[in-house]
Amino acid sequence: MKEVKLGIIGLGTVGTGTLRLLERNASVIGRRAGGMLKIARIATLNPTKPRAIPIDPAILTGDANEILNDPEIAIVAELIGGVNPAKEYVMRTIESGKSVVTANKELIAKCGADIQRAADKAGVDFLFEGSVGGGIPVIKPLRESLAGNGMSELIGIVNGTTNYILTSMTREGRTFGEVLAEAQQLGFAEADPTSDVDAYDAVYKLAILADVAFGVRVRVDDIYREGIRGVSARDIEYATELGYVIKLVAVARHTENGALELRVHPALLPSAHPLASVSDSFNAVMATGDAVGEVMFYGRGAGSDPTGSAVVGDLIEAARNIRSGRKCLVRHEPLHSTAICKFDDIVTRFCVRMQVADQPGVLAQIAAIFGKHGISLESVLQKSSDDHSAEIFWMTHRCPQCAMNSSLQDFAGMSTVNEVSSVLRVEGD
Amino acid sequence: MKEVKLGIIGLGTVGTGTLRLLERNASVIGRRAGGMLKIARIATLNPTKPRAIPIDPAILTGDANEILNDPEIAIVAELIGGVNPAKEYVMRTIESGKSVVTANKELIAKCGADIQRAADKAGVDFLFEGSVGGGIPVIKPLRESLAGNGMSELIGIVNGTTNYILTSMTREGRTFGEVLAEAQQLGFAEADPTSDVDAYDAVYKLAILADVAFGVRVRVDDIYREGIRGVSARDIEYATELGYVIKLVAVARHTENGALELRVHPALLPSAHPLASVSDSFNAVMATGDAVGEVMFYGRGAGSDPTGSAVVGDLIEAARNIRSGRKCLVRHEPLHSTAICKFDDIVTRFCVRMQVADQPGVLAQIAAIFGKHGISLESVLQKSSDDHSAEIFWMTHRCPQCAMNSSLQDFAGMSTVNEVSSVLRVEGD
Repeated sequence: MKEVKLGIIGLGTVGTGTLRLLERNASVIGRRAGGMLKIARIATLNPTKPRAIPIDPAILTGDANEILNDPEIAIVAELIGGVNPAKEYVMRTIESGKSVVTANKELIAKCGADIQRAADKAGVDFLFEGSVGGGIPVIKPLRESLAGNGMSELIGIVNGTTNYILTSMTREGRTFGEVLAEAQQLGFAEADPTSDVDAYDAVYKLAILADVAFGVRVRVDDIYREGIRGVSARDIEYATELGYVIKLVAVARHTENGALELRVHPALLPSAHPLASVSDSFNAVMATGDAVGEVMFYGRGAGSDPTGSAVVGDLIEAARNIRSGRKCLVRHEPLHSTAICKFDDIVTRFCVRMQVADQPGVLAQIAAIFGKHGISLESVLQKSSDDHSAEIFWMTHRCPQCAMNSSLQDFAGMSTVNEVSSVLRVEGD
Repeated sequence: MKEVKLGIIGLGTVGTGTLRLLERNASVIGRRAGGMLKIARIATLNPTKPRAIPIDPAILTGDANEILNDPEIAIVAELIGGVNPAKEYVMRTIESGKSVVTANKELIAKCGADIQRAADKAGVDFLFEGSVGGGIPVIKPLRESLAGNGMSELIGIVNGTTNYILTSMTREGRTFGEVLAEAQQLGFAEADPTSDVDAYDAVYKLAILADVAFGVRVRVDDIYREGIRGVSARDIEYATELGYVIKLVAVARHTENGALELRVHPALLPSAHPLASVSDSFNAVMATGDAVGEVMFYGRGAGSDPTGSAVVGDLIEAARNIRSGRKCLVRHEPLHSTAICKFDDIVTRFCVRMQVADQPGVLAQIAAIFGKHGISLESVLQKSSDDHSAEIFWMTHRCPQCAMNSSLQDFAGMSTVNEVSSVLRVEGD
């Protein structure tokens, strides 16, 4: 069987998982790819560092140019992460007529359009299944199997670290800070957890999903972003009492006027919702198409082996395409020039938790303000505290963000409202 | 944009859904396919019958030869079902150098190897995403995205009618007969429900999944088949009491000695299992790979629009391959010549419900027989009935089928055992 030569740039978590898999299942992978995948060269910052898996030292290099300039290498896996120097490596790979596979969500979210254009021009593959949902097949099913559908909505749990934290908070009644500290100790969260807990990671993934599922190119800055630092044990208690769980969700949804809502934030989901039982570090993406209805993809959203699985799946596809002599078609010009819904116009249900003076007439006063701004209420739970104040947990019907903002402004000016402790959204019903 | 001409054979449920979708989303489908998909001809037994959707009468014909012999038609969708004359149409399509898309599970399960060989030889596509799980992307993710994995296990709920019946029996405490009659009235079950309730349909789908996920060609007759007629309201009551739900499952699993278990039967699943919440006519397939771990695909497993979605996804892929000048690689020779596990050697947990004489020592007697055959017991529930008999519901640990068979033989010879009312398997824990 003919060989297809690979270069791998980056030998961290994903690179190691990819190598391990290419070695373990080499024979089956070769037959499925239509040619043995031979790793010709691996570039890493520190080629002499001891590794968890045996690697022939002769193929290791500290210089990515040895891959980019090797005319025999047909496919490059870029597995270093971040925009620089990954973008330069990817663009040079494509310009030299090689196909590229990557799991680099930040790069694709920020520069995917440029890279796709270059790949289309060069007639090579640009594949990135590992960038969203780790090993879960999401990109290819959305962009190929479901390509006949007009999509109306996509909602996903796409960050494993935050899902682990929220799951532990819910199960054990602990605070965000406690669980985060433990997750960092166990290696489930980074020393600097910003990318996960402040939802940058989920925003990158939503940008990629919006492109693939809706054919819409979006700037990362167009996506509303709110992390999970503000989710308190108290919010989770109320949610549980009302039959909901709190998840960090990534949502893309066509509004009635055709604009696209794009937002990442914590939200209450009814406990019977298919995403509600996605726990720990698992991920899932649920999409709604005009023909298929609701479909969901579920599995391990991160990790060395799962993400390696996605990278190897892409390597097999790229190799098949090379072996079959296929000239890659322009894959993915933006299909639509859809307006992105302004933050103020986004319509959702809300939960508002507040501390108020424990005296007659306050509840009615607050309800009147919601009413004034056109917000109708679904339910309210009031509990008295020790200190002559009371806590109220409101759940509203669907209303625009701007109506909620106006209400919050009014509450800020009221002497009977001591504090608005949290404002969360409700999805999925 | 260049056109790609399609022929459609069969204008039933799936054909109508396919046509509706091709029309509604024509522009986006054309751009994704790299060329407009033009329906050149539709063959149907009754071309003059009134239709739910408007169709140009000039493209309708009663003679499939007008499609098979048209050199301009590049892709044929075979949507009539059954083996004859579908196989002849598919083979002639391939021999004339056209790609073929089908959702015909019986045809693929019984003749897939022959058809694939012919397609490989002719260098055309043979695609069948719609054959399993309706609109849910399953075939392509398993055979492409997860191609790097060695699969150890696959378990699915792949028949919507039986899942609807079992869900209704569980929710409403009704009998199989009552719910089946209602489902037939509502059009959720066929007048002759054999294919669904006796699990032929699920067996065809498991044969296809075993090929795609494990690279193993199996004969339909190699798959153990047991339908849901024997599931009683009483079994469901006990299952619920113990925290389980009863589902018709299709299972493929590598045993420790490397053989493949292939079986379709009702089984108890723990209510926290991801498949346990797949209700009504929804389908789901869960696969376990050595790199990816557990992944699950979930959605509507049947119906005009969902299956149309899968067919159109395949049509887009076939058209892209034609437009890109790709010479199709040999897709899918069997990767392994794996032994199929004999029925007697299949190891599972069991539930046995029996009616016994309500007298001292009977429970110990029966437990001793399980013990004699090496079966250890996990739990037992005994309830007394009115008529001096008692009902016992045993749940065993894992044991081979042959040990259970020997026990059942012994029970048949015991005067204190009035009846073994049901024997069910337990999966997923």
